[in-house]
Amino acid sequence: MNTLRVVCHQLAPRIADVEHNRALSAEAIRGAAALGAQVVVLPELMQSGYVFNDRHEALAVSEDLDGPTLTLWKALASELGIIVVAGFCERLDAGRLANSAALIEPDGRLTVYRKAHLWGREKLIFTPGNEPPPLVETAVGRIAMMICYDLELPEWVRLAALAGADLLCAPVNWPDGPRPADERPAEIVRVQANAAVNRMFIAACDRHGEERGVNWVGGSVIVDADGYPLAGAVSHQKEQRLVADLPLAQARDKFISEHNHVHQDRRPVLY
Amino acid sequence: MNTLRVVCHQLAPRIADVEHNRALSAEAIRGAAALGAQVVVLPELMQSGYVFNDRHEALAVSEDLDGPTLTLWKALASELGIIVVAGFCERLDAGRLANSAALIEPDGRLTVYRKAHLWGREKLIFTPGNEPPPLVETAVGRIAMMICYDLELPEWVRLAALAGADLLCAPVNWPDGPRPADERPAEIVRVQANAAVNRMFIAACDRHGEERGVNWVGGSVIVDADGYPLAGAVSHQKEQRLVADLPLAQARDKFISEHNHVHQDRRPVLY
Repeated sequence: MNTLRVVCHQLAPRIADVEHNRALSAEAIRGAAALGAQVVVLPELMQSGYVFNDRHEALAVSEDLDGPTLTLWKALASELGIIVVAGFCERLDAGRLANSAALIEPDGRLTVYRKAHLWGREKLIFTPGNEPPPLVETAVGRIAMMICYDLELPEWVRLAALAGADLLCAPVNWPDGPRPADERPAEIVRVQANAAVNRMFIAACDRHGEERGVNWVGGSVIVDADGYPLAGAVSHQKEQRLVADLPLAQARDKFISEHNHVHQDRRPVLY
Repeated sequence: MNTLRVVCHQLAPRIADVEHNRALSAEAIRGAAALGAQVVVLPELMQSGYVFNDRHEALAVSEDLDGPTLTLWKALASELGIIVVAGFCERLDAGRLANSAALIEPDGRLTVYRKAHLWGREKLIFTPGNEPPPLVETAVGRIAMMICYDLELPEWVRLAALAGADLLCAPVNWPDGPRPADERPAEIVRVQANAAVNRMFIAACDRHGEERGVNWVGGSVIVDADGYPLAGAVSHQKEQRLVADLPLAQARDKFISEHNHVHQDRRPVLY
């Protein structure tokens, strides 16, 4: 296996301004491709912004899988030969909504994940997904996907790892909050631990840009299979583009000592 | 609930020198009590040392629950009014051994935990435990216990948290290894994440002192319910005594937003 170049582009979607967000995402995808990235990860709800006033506002900007944003991302994935992972506000049937992420391959294949663990007022707006994080056998490696607060459930991350993911891509919007001075944000620490206990790479793409009084950690990070950051991992509340070359083969070797394998050492009958 | 003062005393047991180790542990327990600690945590295999040449050497220094080390720790817990948590090489029946930890309360009550996830050559020496991490309703709070590599199985830590632990005490012996410069050891990062996703305090007591070519992280740490360190959290390959006052009530409040509860947000039917 060769290395995989992944880009996380941390940018600032605007709430309910889908045209602006679409243009911003297109520019980011083109920029990542120009850097030679095989995978680009954009934030949660890239297409719509995050801090909705209510369900009706979210419904008004939601799109289905044939909507203009996914259509654009499909065209760019195909034109540029790049895998796009990004969040969008998905219109389901019967007026329901999901906080979703799309993984689009250059051949046009679309995989959609619907956030299963909703954060805060999302519970008033979105229907939680009931399907496990998907594992996509792409031409460049096995990629899984989940969204933001999902990462705080180690059981969920484990599912993606046990399914065989080399790389977990996670669009996130991490609301900022207090923490001790000089401490790395706990959101990033949890990503590191998730990677280490599974020997799996993780690319989490956060956002910046205050939205209706909410600020964001700006903590985009790309972590290796030992749990150490390859890029990012600080609170940087501005635009940033992280680039890392991932030796994915490391994620196929789950041994951490002659006698220890991070997955075979589990004792599921006891859990 | 008042705060709980906990001490982790990182010291250097000597392999197979039980008299030395007993004296060292007694001094540490007395020292913690003199600081007003209600709980003292000592390393994994405090009683015996860690790097056994083989099973026979471990068997020769093993003790049962009435052995001289646990008898001493019981006497000290009673005399000093302190809870002692420490590791020992336990003799089971039929010549079997366990990598165990004792939690001894001032009233003499003894709770024993047997490491369920064995590291490296431990698999050639010890029989793994088959019981979940115990939850002890002490006079000063609900305390759970596990040992070293157990902490790398988030499912196992979750069991302790779901049982209601305010504080997880973990005797550890973290073998040192390579890591990027300026990065906090991944062992500590995993402790932080375990604490945060469960809103539970964790006190992990490591050791120092080279033993048969093995060095140790020296990464003892006491972490709060948000996952941030209250003491320790660096690689310090010398003796150190960490002291922290834990507001245990914080571990009883599992809400991390108006709508989010770290345990009720789990969706076990999906895992």
